[in-house]
Amino acid sequence: MKNCIVAQSGGPTAAINASLAGVIKGVLDQEKYGKIYGSLNGITGILEGRFLDLTETFQDSGNLELLKVSPAMYLGSCRYKLPKLEEGMGDYQKIFAFFEKMEIGAFFYIGGNDSMDTVDKLSAYAEKIKSPVRIIGIPKTIDNDLCVTDHTPGFGSAAKYVAASLLEIYHDTVIYNLKSVTVVEIMGRDAGWLTAASVLARNGYCPAPHLIYLPESAFDTEAFLKDVEGMLGQYNNVIVAVSEGIRDKDGKYISASSGAVDNFGHSQLSGAGKTLEYLIQGRLDVKVRSIELNVLQRCSSHIASLTDLEESFCQGQHGVALAAEGNTGLMVTIQRVSDEPYQVAYGSAPVCEIANGVKEVPAEFISPEGNDVAEGILAYLRPLVQGEPKIRFEQGVPCYLPVRHLS
Amino acid sequence: MKNCIVAQSGGPTAAINASLAGVIKGVLDQEKYGKIYGSLNGITGILEGRFLDLTETFQDSGNLELLKVSPAMYLGSCRYKLPKLEEGMGDYQKIFAFFEKMEIGAFFYIGGNDSMDTVDKLSAYAEKIKSPVRIIGIPKTIDNDLCVTDHTPGFGSAAKYVAASLLEIYHDTVIYNLKSVTVVEIMGRDAGWLTAASVLARNGYCPAPHLIYLPESAFDTEAFLKDVEGMLGQYNNVIVAVSEGIRDKDGKYISASSGAVDNFGHSQLSGAGKTLEYLIQGRLDVKVRSIELNVLQRCSSHIASLTDLEESFCQGQHGVALAAEGNTGLMVTIQRVSDEPYQVAYGSAPVCEIANGVKEVPAEFISPEGNDVAEGILAYLRPLVQGEPKIRFEQGVPCYLPVRHLS
Repeated sequence: MKNCIVAQSGGPTAAINASLAGVIKGVLDQEKYGKIYGSLNGITGILEGRFLDLTETFQDSGNLELLKVSPAMYLGSCRYKLPKLEEGMGDYQKIFAFFEKMEIGAFFYIGGNDSMDTVDKLSAYAEKIKSPVRIIGIPKTIDNDLCVTDHTPGFGSAAKYVAASLLEIYHDTVIYNLKSVTVVEIMGRDAGWLTAASVLARNGYCPAPHLIYLPESAFDTEAFLKDVEGMLGQYNNVIVAVSEGIRDKDGKYISASSGAVDNFGHSQLSGAGKTLEYLIQGRLDVKVRSIELNVLQRCSSHIASLTDLEESFCQGQHGVALAAEGNTGLMVTIQRVSDEPYQVAYGSAPVCEIANGVKEVPAEFISPEGNDVAEGILAYLRPLVQGEPKIRFEQGVPCYLPVRHLS
Repeated sequence: MKNCIVAQSGGPTAAINASLAGVIKGVLDQEKYGKIYGSLNGITGILEGRFLDLTETFQDSGNLELLKVSPAMYLGSCRYKLPKLEEGMGDYQKIFAFFEKMEIGAFFYIGGNDSMDTVDKLSAYAEKIKSPVRIIGIPKTIDNDLCVTDHTPGFGSAAKYVAASLLEIYHDTVIYNLKSVTVVEIMGRDAGWLTAASVLARNGYCPAPHLIYLPESAFDTEAFLKDVEGMLGQYNNVIVAVSEGIRDKDGKYISASSGAVDNFGHSQLSGAGKTLEYLIQGRLDVKVRSIELNVLQRCSSHIASLTDLEESFCQGQHGVALAAEGNTGLMVTIQRVSDEPYQVAYGSAPVCEIANGVKEVPAEFISPEGNDVAEGILAYLRPLVQGEPKIRFEQGVPCYLPVRHLS
């Protein structure tokens, strides 16, 4: 009986451990496979022989449930990109020697674009050397920018955090009878999905965010100042959601336009939010503040989306089923069957169709002026943030499973 | 039968509406009083005749419960400081004319230091003109820096947010096998209570924050760099919690030490976190990031402390009882009866003993080196973050009561 090994890679999300839990459960439930190993720090764990046997630990369903709701990566991460085959086969030989020694039948790699590139390369190498090891990719990224699949594990939780935060920031700013502008910078370098999700903060009383800017539309500072002024005519407290990746018509990041140098002599590369704060400060007579939603938008498991966690779990399980059926070089995908009632189906696509591509927010989801999203995006976004996981608190603080790669 | 009026002032917290709910419930339950009015935007609502009758709305217990868990101020806020009596009695005459016209028997002002100054001035004026109106202060501030009272409403919720966030940031940073430093800037200009509360993130596996710096200890950049280097010898990923108000031995804010000017010609006053990020970047060979916990630390009601909300509610109720007994010029206080089991009693103190004072973190709660808190602070902090309120989510986003001052 063959064993399996799983690893996690890239930036953390609140759902990547739910996918790991899905893979583990998939293997435990699958008669075809024996042990489930976990490689520490992504593929580098396999290269360096650092791994754990997860089989025993997660036969305890309590551990599995706790894993599902714990932020970031239980197995640690890496940012290691395999060399191209023609550049040297050393890594490949090491990895497949490990697979042989540990009697591995399938390798599951949970990650974003770069990890799918690794899945692509490893499955091509396996084919070349006629290895029977199945290589399957399980997606994750808060950016929601992977092609082919309807949405990515981790996005729904980050979107829920962004929406809740924008609503809470609205409550915070609206209490004064003074004109103010608050610029909220949200993650997303190449695709504006997460910034677009800020629209979910709007409700019967909350018009915020009043303006939304995505990297998909060229950013014009003069048009922006006009937009803000217009909104200040209607509202006392204007909230602007802006993607960290906004660029001008020449593709130059707005975040890179600050020429500031601090007193240690370092060039201060202000982010988009800070840059727009200074712009407003200099040009409009209004109180202004910028807020960067920093790493908490990707690791705040205490306000994760239950839908996201459950789908991430299912995608992990589905990956195991794909391998057990003999497939390789695939990434698990999720297809939307309907918006209302929200229904999805799990499928797969050749990883080579996904790796290194970027799914941007389509034009029909963006307002013609490029300063808001279009109504149609709500039906797409809304189902992804539904439901709240049960988080246990210990001494008033969330209870999570510790990251294991340190041990 | 006399009526009551209540107002909220200063910066928002997650618990200030719980205190408002307590005042409203106190008045509704009190046979001595008739209606409960709410002044919009603090004392300015009384000066300008902008107020609501809250009596009907909050006889509905569902509304009262929703109010308890909603962030910021239902009645809006202001930053208006009454002139000294000798500088002009106009405001005072207007306020007491309003009280007479609306048949007000008691005024409750929920706020921080500045609001207690208003309570102090109004009760002195009432005494001077022999007005029977009772003036009572209900404390609130995430800074926990009011004198006499054991802790302040709003602090526990902010402390819980800070602790949970530090734990989640730890999970986020610890996944890579690379040396890194993350500097987390926490609110607190004059007192380090909230930064000190970051210690609650530490648990059986999480050593973060590895270093904690409060405004109460003079900050020395060279000692800081040595501290960080020392920690990097023991840990891959070092997390530093730092108060926005840290100062050097001459009392100069570390946040003000950046001489940067942006390309709009504005001087960039970097915060403490950013300043330390640049310092580390320039002096240590390590990946570094700074995170500002911004306004979400004071308005994230979705992770409020139930203990804080309940105590805030009780302090509102207690304020009404104080007024009904004929007291005036008092602020409600909370006294700790015991740490374990945690027990408190509600009391009061003359507001003149509280207004314009600052309660700092005492030396026995700070490590001798000034780079951590002392063990003893845990017993003080721990009870304040216990319990989680039930937050209803609608369409995946928290459901709150809208701020009313806009209507």
